[in-house]
Amino acid sequence: MIIVMKQKVSAEQVDAVSQRIRSLGYEPHIIHGESRDVIGAVGDERGKMVLQSLESMAGVEKVVPILKPYKLASREVCPEPSQVELAPGVVIGGAELIVMAGPCSVESEEQIVFTAQAVKRAGARVLRGGAFKPRTSPYSFQGMEEEGLKLLDLARQETGLPIVTEVVNPRDVELVARYADILQVGARNVQNFALLKMLGQLDKPVLLKRGMATTIQEYLMSAEYILSEGNRRVVLCERGIRTFETATRNTLDISAVPVLKEQTHLPVVIDPSHATGHAQLVPSMCYAGVAAGCDGLIVEVHPTPETAASDGPQSLRPAEFADMMLKLKRFAEVAERTLPQVGGC
Amino acid sequence: MIIVMKQKVSAEQVDAVSQRIRSLGYEPHIIHGESRDVIGAVGDERGKMVLQSLESMAGVEKVVPILKPYKLASREVCPEPSQVELAPGVVIGGAELIVMAGPCSVESEEQIVFTAQAVKRAGARVLRGGAFKPRTSPYSFQGMEEEGLKLLDLARQETGLPIVTEVVNPRDVELVARYADILQVGARNVQNFALLKMLGQLDKPVLLKRGMATTIQEYLMSAEYILSEGNRRVVLCERGIRTFETATRNTLDISAVPVLKEQTHLPVVIDPSHATGHAQLVPSMCYAGVAAGCDGLIVEVHPTPETAASDGPQSLRPAEFADMMLKLKRFAEVAERTLPQVGGC
Amino acid sequence: MIIVMKQKVSAEQVDAVSQRIRSLGYEPHIIHGESRDVIGAVGDERGKMVLQSLESMAGVEKVVPILKPYKLASREVCPEPSQVELAPGVVIGGAELIVMAGPCSVESEEQIVFTAQAVKRAGARVLRGGAFKPRTSPYSFQGMEEEGLKLLDLARQETGLPIVTEVVNPRDVELVARYADILQVGARNVQNFALLKMLGQLDKPVLLKRGMATTIQEYLMSAEYILSEGNRRVVLCERGIRTFETATRNTLDISAVPVLKEQTHLPVVIDPSHATGHAQLVPSMCYAGVAAGCDGLIVEVHPTPETAASDGPQSLRPAEFADMMLKLKRFAEVAERTLPQVGGC
Amino acid sequence: MIIVMKQKVSAEQVDAVSQRIRSLGYEPHIIHGESRDVIGAVGDERGKMVLQSLESMAGVEKVVPILKPYKLASREVCPEPSQVELAPGVVIGGAELIVMAGPCSVESEEQIVFTAQAVKRAGARVLRGGAFKPRTSPYSFQGMEEEGLKLLDLARQETGLPIVTEVVNPRDVELVARYADILQVGARNVQNFALLKMLGQLDKPVLLKRGMATTIQEYLMSAEYILSEGNRRVVLCERGIRTFETATRNTLDISAVPVLKEQTHLPVVIDPSHATGHAQLVPSMCYAGVAAGCDGLIVEVHPTPETAASDGPQSLRPAEFADMMLKLKRFAEVAERTLPQVGGC
Repeated sequence: MIIVMKQKVSAEQVDAVSQRIRSLGYEPHIIHGESRDVIGAVGDERGKMVLQSLESMAGVEKVVPILKPYKLASREVCPEPSQVELAPGVVIGGAELIVMAGPCSVESEEQIVFTAQAVKRAGARVLRGGAFKPRTSPYSFQGMEEEGLKLLDLARQETGLPIVTEVVNPRDVELVARYADILQVGARNVQNFALLKMLGQLDKPVLLKRGMATTIQEYLMSAEYILSEGNRRVVLCERGIRTFETATRNTLDISAVPVLKEQTHLPVVIDPSHATGHAQLVPSMCYAGVAAGCDGLIVEVHPTPETAASDGPQSLRPAEFADMMLKLKRFAEVAERTLPQVGGC
Repeated sequence: MIIVMKQKVSAEQVDAVSQRIRSLGYEPHIIHGESRDVIGAVGDERGKMVLQSLESMAGVEKVVPILKPYKLASREVCPEPSQVELAPGVVIGGAELIVMAGPCSVESEEQIVFTAQAVKRAGARVLRGGAFKPRTSPYSFQGMEEEGLKLLDLARQETGLPIVTEVVNPRDVELVARYADILQVGARNVQNFALLKMLGQLDKPVLLKRGMATTIQEYLMSAEYILSEGNRRVVLCERGIRTFETATRNTLDISAVPVLKEQTHLPVVIDPSHATGHAQLVPSMCYAGVAAGCDGLIVEVHPTPETAASDGPQSLRPAEFADMMLKLKRFAEVAERTLPQVGGC
Repeated sequence: MIIVMKQKVSAEQVDAVSQRIRSLGYEPHIIHGESRDVIGAVGDERGKMVLQSLESMAGVEKVVPILKPYKLASREVCPEPSQVELAPGVVIGGAELIVMAGPCSVESEEQIVFTAQAVKRAGARVLRGGAFKPRTSPYSFQGMEEEGLKLLDLARQETGLPIVTEVVNPRDVELVARYADILQVGARNVQNFALLKMLGQLDKPVLLKRGMATTIQEYLMSAEYILSEGNRRVVLCERGIRTFETATRNTLDISAVPVLKEQTHLPVVIDPSHATGHAQLVPSMCYAGVAAGCDGLIVEVHPTPETAASDGPQSLRPAEFADMMLKLKRFAEVAERTLPQVGGC
Repeated sequence: MIIVMKQKVSAEQVDAVSQRIRSLGYEPHIIHGESRDVIGAVGDERGKMVLQSLESMAGVEKVVPILKPYKLASREVCPEPSQVELAPGVVIGGAELIVMAGPCSVESEEQIVFTAQAVKRAGARVLRGGAFKPRTSPYSFQGMEEEGLKLLDLARQETGLPIVTEVVNPRDVELVARYADILQVGARNVQNFALLKMLGQLDKPVLLKRGMATTIQEYLMSAEYILSEGNRRVVLCERGIRTFETATRNTLDISAVPVLKEQTHLPVVIDPSHATGHAQLVPSMCYAGVAAGCDGLIVEVHPTPETAASDGPQSLRPAEFADMMLKLKRFAEVAERTLPQVGGC
């Protein structure tokens, strides 16, 4: 931490701050500047987060953090990229680009099995589908809940695809973990710390979506909640942030991909469906994500978007998804990623 | 809903959209414009939220909602302002301006009782204090949990002030409700729908904070989750939104006060401490909030901010709080609000 | 400046950075931290702005500025609040709250003279009115230009009110200055540095609006452009920033008022009309602004908003303005401001 | 336009609005909804922009625009993508991906000529370099002005590369146009309409950067200012928007590429240097831009970023640029774009 003093403060005030720094277990180093003093506090601030309160001391103008506040998520602790096994034989973070696809919500056996078969044929390695849906309106479809999980299980049996599905209530973690291969935390729950802690105690990979207004630093702190409880299988997912622009549902923060790859060893996935909100924008954002260096994609696919219970306008039809995958494979190759088994629709 | 068609679409496409509108239970009205057709869908869209999927139909450019999607929170359903009883004799939404004050976190018996007495003397009607703390970092102080609730109970006994405290996990709702008079939902949980639903089944008032990236419409939908479960005692709280500006922790959206008063009957409170993040900015934001028409304030007060376990820099000292209350009383009078029992420190 | 080095850099890299700091005229102070070194560069960085380029040197992680980059606008250079004479006898920044009012655009002699008389009667001390209008669309009304300036002059003769009007092109500064008492820089031109420099050479007060995406620090740097050219009569104006919220045209950053009052000696005005975009929200934002400590207001008033050439929906009618002024006077008194001559409509 | 009436308004109020619509030259169509009336106003609203003022009429809740407000920039008027000739033989918007590169500021003959030769060798088709620099601080380097233009001219003679350089003052348009092949409008001037109008009367291509807080619709309206004055050679440039995220200088809005390609026929370029602010993020954003479908890139390259007069931290060194170009060529091929003449450094 750097403690910046106000102009013309007394030596007593600088002393008091130095003593307080020392009493908190840090070593103060005073730099006498031209117009003000600056005090460096040497020590590992990440474990305690207490120096910020110095801002209330007399004579202090501001406290500037130097170290990043996360540890286990950082490249400093783990310099090499992590490879996370999502299911037997499905590893993200390595050479293979992992595409997860499926409908926003599970709606029926026919819908989910049909979609699972279609996305598998086109090259997807994981099936997505929501059973517990966090919806803005209490009057909107809230998901099929356990019934939906059972249908996902069925689709998995039919296709062999592992499934990723969202959990929204800490109470349901155990239930969802019984069915799911990968548990998803949605954007709205990125700082639902009770949920994160429970997932940290699980032996299943977690797909943690970035919140709409979460900075990258806060996002990695949320990952740290899971990691610090013992679960090291965390996959990050950029899904658009909230900005003033209304042409898209959110703004895909594509530069978050290289920023995250620089700061953390965790794999990074892009969700172009939620980011843009419009199906016709999804393919180009898939290509951009891969070109930017992401490890995977999660894409909404629905057999008949115009009748979807949720998020129809942002869902690709199976044929559109298959076309996208064919072109994606070529971009993936330039990005030095493999994308096996890509087929037509 | 208004369905805007693309330019030069065929009559068949317009027909198909009209039929689909009808099949969903609405009546289509086609307006032939100069360059494109527009179809109005007449019916109560709030209960279903299904028309948005029309955007996936051929020839449709966009779907524009007309009605607000909330009902019970709206002025249309309940034209008069609601008065919410927070505790016997403490009513918000009427003539009295209700000030809630106390530390960010409960830290010790001495701290919470001393603060409770001080804020009561200065005119606060409710004691705030966190026992379950949602913290960005897993390494930060997470609150005293049930021990903290017991200390709040003690402070209530000492002062008679009802207490408001945060609940972050649906699992803890019952526990927190045993101690608290008012349950607070923090900004990070504004779309934790599992939590909102549980609170909707409670017979206790709920202080629902706006999220950092929650639009006013989404915010009222979150209130609707609580209301639609049966609990009508919801108090709203604007606490700053996330913007590009870094001089303040968040940006207090002061115009949210008159906007909310126009759109909903629920009482509206301002939290200037979290909004600004700096104690010296808090008093002027309290005055501004009251001048803008809010029904109450929630303010952080700590006996020694420089040693606070959390949020020290934004906490007023008791004497500063008392000074603020004296001036606030005069602004409240001009705003036609009463603020009884305001005393010195 | 604080230069934060990466982890595990060589002593040679630290040396190279230190030498470069010295060669740029600063004194390096190295702090050896637990996990990395930090170098303080002592010297007055505000006049040069060159240290940021150190970020490109090997081993440097980031460069953190400590000093605020503005001088003449700062409280450090000028500790007391500035009082700016807008016209003979009209001083802003002192005890009197200055209200500027009038239509968005000058449309006709009748319109501007009638409005000027009405706002004067209600207590306004300055007449606003646009002759050069920066409009988003090239097909919208662009203002009456010099003809509009002449009508403003006429209204000034009729009422004695000094006039504030916008200038958008450096070429027009001289022309506008011939007619106007105060020259306004609109939000879109807050970083039109060519315009700011010309205004800095003028002997007329300047009302400088904050841009929609201008941080407070950048805003004060724009003021510094005018001040550093010699013109010390600068008045700041918060008029709403761009956020994700769409219920209001922009989001009035009310906490900018105390932040600016803390950082600069320049007077601060609030524009609630552009900030909210809705006339019915304007009065409460006027009250909030005064309670927050602003030195003045600029409010749009139009005799018939439903026929206004621009910004009708955010314009108060004269009777609404007069009502607002009556209540404003009472808030102003509590804020220890005078508001003389407030009359009915 | 759609005019949404309030609930329970009188038939007289609906009549009054209808009559006003008619008097403005539109045809009203009333839809009687379940809870309120909605009036469609049929006519070409783009040329007039006057219906918004209806919001001030009694009984009107809001006015919702349906048509996009720009014409000449739209795909509706010009369905095919425009190819813009930047200089003889250098055409953007067609099969060739056009890369513009060079330093932020022209600093010396040696610097600009050396950089021009290096970027040409690596495959750039246009040389960028600032002579008039809009800087946040009045104390920062403001550019070499005409001297800089002469050095750009020299570099053009040495390399044959056409030059793009910024103009910030309408007064300088003629001067800059004497030297430049392409005139650039910077982000801060995107709504400097006086400047846009002058550029609209020029016979030179214009590179118009999006502002930090400019919506896509507003951006296209700014392009419309140039187009409507007669100059059809406009190239758009996404360069990052301002958001809450601070890990990057701005947030590159990559989905703006397909959105713009859908809405306008004008070519679209990406500026990853200003968007990210960090050189190490630039290559992946170049790749992402091309994968997303952009027509060109503008990239900052400086021989020694650590001594650059401006924007050093975001500048690639020539060797880094050459490496990037080699990989870019492969992404361009998948995107069906050619990138000829790519060489090593």
